[in-house]
Amino acid sequence: ASASASAAAPAVVPRDPNVDKLQSAAQTNSRAYDMVRSLVDEVGPRLAGSLGDKAAVAWALRTLKDKGLENVRAEKVMVPHWERGLESGRIVAPFAHTLALAALGGSVGTPPKGLEGEIVMVESLDAMAAMDEAKVKGKIVFFSAPMTRTSDGSGYGKVAGIRHRGAVAAAKKGAIGVLLRSIGTDHDRLPHTGAMGYEKDVPKIPAAALAVPDAELLARLVGQGKPVRVSFSLGAKLLPDAESANVIGEVKGREKPDEIVLLGAHLDAWDLGQGAIDDGAGCAAVVEAARLVLGLGTRPRRTIRVVLFANEENGLRGAVAYAKDHAAELDKHQLALEIDLGSGRVHTTRFLVADASRPVAERIASLVSPLGIQYDKAPARGGADLIPLHAAAVPIVDLHQDATKYFDVHHTANDTLDKVTKEDLDQVVGAVATVAWAAAEAPETFARVPEELRKR
Amino acid sequence: ASASASAAAPAVVPRDPNVDKLQSAAQTNSRAYDMVRSLVDEVGPRLAGSLGDKAAVAWALRTLKDKGLENVRAEKVMVPHWERGLESGRIVAPFAHTLALAALGGSVGTPPKGLEGEIVMVESLDAMAAMDEAKVKGKIVFFSAPMTRTSDGSGYGKVAGIRHRGAVAAAKKGAIGVLLRSIGTDHDRLPHTGAMGYEKDVPKIPAAALAVPDAELLARLVGQGKPVRVSFSLGAKLLPDAESANVIGEVKGREKPDEIVLLGAHLDAWDLGQGAIDDGAGCAAVVEAARLVLGLGTRPRRTIRVVLFANEENGLRGAVAYAKDHAAELDKHQLALEIDLGSGRVHTTRFLVADASRPVAERIASLVSPLGIQYDKAPARGGADLIPLHAAAVPIVDLHQDATKYFDVHHTANDTLDKVTKEDLDQVVGAVATVAWAAAEAPETFARVPEELRKR
Ligand SMILES: [Zn+2]
Ligand SMILES: [Zn+2]
Ligand SMILES: [Zn+2]
Ligand SMILES: [Zn+2]
Repeated sequence: ASASASAAAPAVVPRDPNVDKLQSAAQTNSRAYDMVRSLVDEVGPRLAGSLGDKAAVAWALRTLKDKGLENVRAEKVMVPHWERGLESGRIVAPFAHTLALAALGGSVGTPPKGLEGEIVMVESLDAMAAMDEAKVKGKIVFFSAPMTRTSDGSGYGKVAGIRHRGAVAAAKKGAIGVLLRSIGTDHDRLPHTGAMGYEKDVPKIPAAALAVPDAELLARLVGQGKPVRVSFSLGAKLLPDAESANVIGEVKGREKPDEIVLLGAHLDAWDLGQGAIDDGAGCAAVVEAARLVLGLGTRPRRTIRVVLFANEENGLRGAVAYAKDHAAELDKHQLALEIDLGSGRVHTTRFLVADASRPVAERIASLVSPLGIQYDKAPARGGADLIPLHAAAVPIVDLHQDATKYFDVHHTANDTLDKVTKEDLDQVVGAVATVAWAAAEAPETFARVPEELRKR
Repeated sequence: ASASASAAAPAVVPRDPNVDKLQSAAQTNSRAYDMVRSLVDEVGPRLAGSLGDKAAVAWALRTLKDKGLENVRAEKVMVPHWERGLESGRIVAPFAHTLALAALGGSVGTPPKGLEGEIVMVESLDAMAAMDEAKVKGKIVFFSAPMTRTSDGSGYGKVAGIRHRGAVAAAKKGAIGVLLRSIGTDHDRLPHTGAMGYEKDVPKIPAAALAVPDAELLARLVGQGKPVRVSFSLGAKLLPDAESANVIGEVKGREKPDEIVLLGAHLDAWDLGQGAIDDGAGCAAVVEAARLVLGLGTRPRRTIRVVLFANEENGLRGAVAYAKDHAAELDKHQLALEIDLGSGRVHTTRFLVADASRPVAERIASLVSPLGIQYDKAPARGGADLIPLHAAAVPIVDLHQDATKYFDVHHTANDTLDKVTKEDLDQVVGAVATVAWAAAEAPETFARVPEELRKR
């Protein structure tokens, strides 16, 4: 019986023995954790354009070949090359304190001697937009909004806009610099970096994140009502674009090798940490899933393509280049997913597919349910690297991972191997391998996603 | 009925209405948390001899007077003045990595260009002593022992000796420097500093702690069997002794003002953090306990003396000076305690007292039992600042606090206000106030502690 589109849970479908083998192998024979360790130990930080980025591309080529993937290659991508340099900050008055801070990715530097000014504290972008220019001009804006811990990571989206657009919003009112409370759920003296942007015709002012305890200290001092002065210095600068690459490997399909199930993750990682959870874990999960499929001894009907994207963090140049370089075959992309939430266990799956393809989507969902994964009819949204594929009507599946602890260490120096849990990562591998096999093997080819579904 | 010396639990004794008032006030009216906040916000780091140390003495004088304590004064103490300076480290080979490290307190600096050498990894001081000199000479010794998390903090003592004596042990075999895995239970990229020592006629070599994730990375690379090279640079230096002070305030006794119940904590704190848990919380607990006793409107029989010791962290000069300055009245010290384990709830009390004073000790223990505190007949050991009093036969009480999380942030940049839990700290205040009142009010004067008990 095919699943009805209105059913909350997919109908039970016959097991596929290859799925059983993949799920068992993921539990007992996964080398995903070792792969994260290898990336962390041999490469570590690898921001786009850096020496680490070059080392990561070389590592990925070597690793995908070692794993037996086919057609392993690096597809050149020009990426932004932003460097942090030295940075420091302090509260000058009413009491002297050292501040733990980090420039946001893409920020301009301060003058060499730093920037000093009085603090204006605001809670949100809306509050900033409502501020009187006279109260902001010549001052340093401090965005104090905290991030809420949730298992679905939804707290992130509620405040990440401050990181992306806070500098523009403050500069429009005449601010000379921006500090923000780190977008994170921890209380460590380790600031969370992440991408920010500027706008044409708005002055580019330096922007940095304060570690949460430092932001709370600053907020307490501002709350005392006396003027608070801060000085900070950022050595950040943007260099000419550099060469990087999307690294790709495949399991070639036996019947329809030109139809593609895309398993994505991003190879780049912020400079502060080791990129273990963001996104070493994702890279390992998708590569390991492909290796386990290879180990079945039988090829799926379609090609499984692993793509380790360049420059997800501060540019999406890898995603854009992939869509451009593969424009001619995007309509042959059966299904795409991206893993980018550390080693959090997958708890829910969603699909963005045409109604005609709901039945096959729900059959795939039923195949991952033994891993403790629920099916949710709500549409998938896809990871950041899938934005261009989403726009090109490629069907997308989301494997929603538990995000409870992810934002404790996300984009900080604390993104290290110890934050990866082997058992959880292996469950992700099992889920990815199942979806990859089932989508690549399905008799049905997924229909393109109609525009009205994509706009939701 | 008086408690028998062999009873596991003290006999029930009549309640003292003043004790009930103190315990109720500690729960509903404590300002201890606000006091930690004030110390953190207005002073912050305050290592002996630093500007922060001077600011802390001024803050303490002001605060104790504000709280209404009597005979508030600073008793001068000359303290060591060690400064950290700039520091950095990296793994040079087989793969390049930045290391999060911090000089141990008291370490010499490296040459300005830093120190580079091959790593020799050892687990313990015993293993170090057994090493062949030829394998160590000219190299950097890396002590890799992890600390175990326990609720009583006993994991600390098992490895803290490496921090104190590791440099001497390594230098005796010809090592040029020492790195150790931080003495801590976290996995943050924040190294744990703490005091270390040198010995006469053994070369003074630089010593630093690695953050736990960095130590684990280094151990993994060493474990691969290829030579691992590290470079590190410490700007640490020892300046001439500086002036600091023990800050003292009292609640003068009504009948025997020359007999003293001493409530101790230490005012100094390491330079990396804000000294909220170590030992802002202890300072606040003992001061607040005295303030609550003052609020009773009736004085206890004996004097309660709050002592905020100078330089506990790297010298104990405050403790030594107190014992020297007050040598003539040490035999009038009824009982002494020190609070120095953050805001962890008190779960157990122990006494170091002569057998003749067990009954009064057990009566005091019974008075704190409504706070969820067990009585343990094992002898108290006292905090570090009580060592000279212990040697002078002063009776000692320990209020054992829960240490489960304390060593996650101890001696790191993460020692910030958010690590203090108001409700738990207020329970500590209630316990200190109860013990202080009961010991100061008791009809019995405590006997001196016989030498055979002190030696146990
Ligand atoms: Zn990511
Ligand atoms: Zn990221
Ligand atoms: Zn302490
Ligand atoms: Zn300490």
